[in-house]
Amino acid sequence: MILVNGQPAHTLPVEDRGLQYGDGLFETLRIHHGSPVCWERHRTRLSAGCRRLGIPLPGPDLLDAEISRVCAGVDAGVLKLILTRGPGPRGYAPPKGAQPTRILQVAPAPRHPDAWSREGVAVRLCTTRLARNPRLAEIKHLNRLEQVLARSEWDDEVQEGIMRDTEGQVVEGVMSNLFLVCGDGLRTPDLQHCGVAGITRARVMELADRRGIPCRVGAISEADLWRADGLFLTNTLIGIWPVSCLAGKTRPVPPLVGHLREALGLTEGGCRA
Amino acid sequence: MILVNGQPAHTLPVEDRGLQYGDGLFETLRIHHGSPVCWERHRTRLSAGCRRLGIPLPGPDLLDAEISRVCAGVDAGVLKLILTRGPGPRGYAPPKGAQPTRILQVAPAPRHPDAWSREGVAVRLCTTRLARNPRLAEIKHLNRLEQVLARSEWDDEVQEGIMRDTEGQVVEGVMSNLFLVCGDGLRTPDLQHCGVAGITRARVMELADRRGIPCRVGAISEADLWRADGLFLTNTLIGIWPVSCLAGKTRPVPPLVGHLREALGLTEGGCRA
Repeated sequence: MILVNGQPAHTLPVEDRGLQYGDGLFETLRIHHGSPVCWERHRTRLSAGCRRLGIPLPGPDLLDAEISRVCAGVDAGVLKLILTRGPGPRGYAPPKGAQPTRILQVAPAPRHPDAWSREGVAVRLCTTRLARNPRLAEIKHLNRLEQVLARSEWDDEVQEGIMRDTEGQVVEGVMSNLFLVCGDGLRTPDLQHCGVAGITRARVMELADRRGIPCRVGAISEADLWRADGLFLTNTLIGIWPVSCLAGKTRPVPPLVGHLREALGLTEGGCRA
Repeated sequence: MILVNGQPAHTLPVEDRGLQYGDGLFETLRIHHGSPVCWERHRTRLSAGCRRLGIPLPGPDLLDAEISRVCAGVDAGVLKLILTRGPGPRGYAPPKGAQPTRILQVAPAPRHPDAWSREGVAVRLCTTRLARNPRLAEIKHLNRLEQVLARSEWDDEVQEGIMRDTEGQVVEGVMSNLFLVCGDGLRTPDLQHCGVAGITRARVMELADRRGIPCRVGAISEADLWRADGLFLTNTLIGIWPVSCLAGKTRPVPPLVGHLREALGLTEGGCRA
């Protein structure tokens, strides 16, 4: 099912700035028993993106109503919400009084083997780099060519790729955030230059905080990846995936990763905003 | 008039990767007496972009026929050609055998006062920076949020903004390329890190070469802008605009700018590819 501005539709006008310039934002949510998981957290990030780009956020009741409508009766699925600046005349200048376009798409939940969550996945180090621009960091905008190019680097020989920025710092996975297990603590790349501030990343950081597990946010080099006691990936749809193989080399999966995954799963139904 | 994959249409499928990820390219051409100006040059750049992104370029006859069709009878106008990777399922991975989407939109020619071409325009120095990523430099892709943010910095108090990259190097205008007049020669920023390799930029460089005017391509700092004897902007629709005011300060317009503008105009009808 697809809703465009509240109406069932499969198309949008060619003049929409989402197509013309990638002038918009998106959120990917898990649908569980007919409800969007962690919607308040996604709404908060969407709202931050809107402020950054100067796109008016639609009223909360409107989004709530449309999301309820598309999620109703979906036991397990994925909701992609796209918000663009809307249609406009030629030129980069955002039109005055532009009416943002809301697109809600529901798709089946992806089916990944359980072993990927329990035992881990194989990842590559992507050659495609992320550009540094603080103005576009953290938010989930529609300019995703770097991810497309990075994801083009492999077929199905690995499950994810880790991306560095143009200065060589490790940032994130193509579709996920990255954590390092170092002793009894965690590390995760800061996202001041680039990268998406993932919802599951935030949940893991809060979980660590509640359990007294230190989590350092900062610069991570490739050497840090090899020195770490373990690595894991997070995103809304996969939860936590341990990394059992990096660039063809077997990596240990510390018990802490499984504990975090189980603890995160326990809060899934009632995701705290 | 809009053609989508050769058919008159005003919409495209929501699943198109042009919308989902900005996964595509575009070209903006001037239409003059029913023909696209410099189409072969634009096609060459489009082709380079396709190679970079791994999008198959539609056959030349197909594009030629569709362009002829939309330009027919248009005395003066603008043709925007968008080529996306086409529709696809969820996920960044480019689908195998994706069929690119061709979108051709014709709009009226923009009306700018003649004085802007003859006497010059006022420009600002944008605070929005361009990120550095050689993988996306030079080509005219659909990830244009930086230009949207930069163009949001002013209403109509200036005619264009000059953009620097995140390292402070001067790169281009929001919708144009930039030249400096220095003595009897020209300078223009190199585009190895970011920026669009403009068609009119290339034509000016060739024109300079034919006339024995040295043109140096390299790094340009903000200080270089102030030291230059003059500045001018180029793009397909404006041709050449001298800069008569930079960040509120009057700037001289050397006679060379007018000479280049006239010489460029003489070749406009029969743009050499």
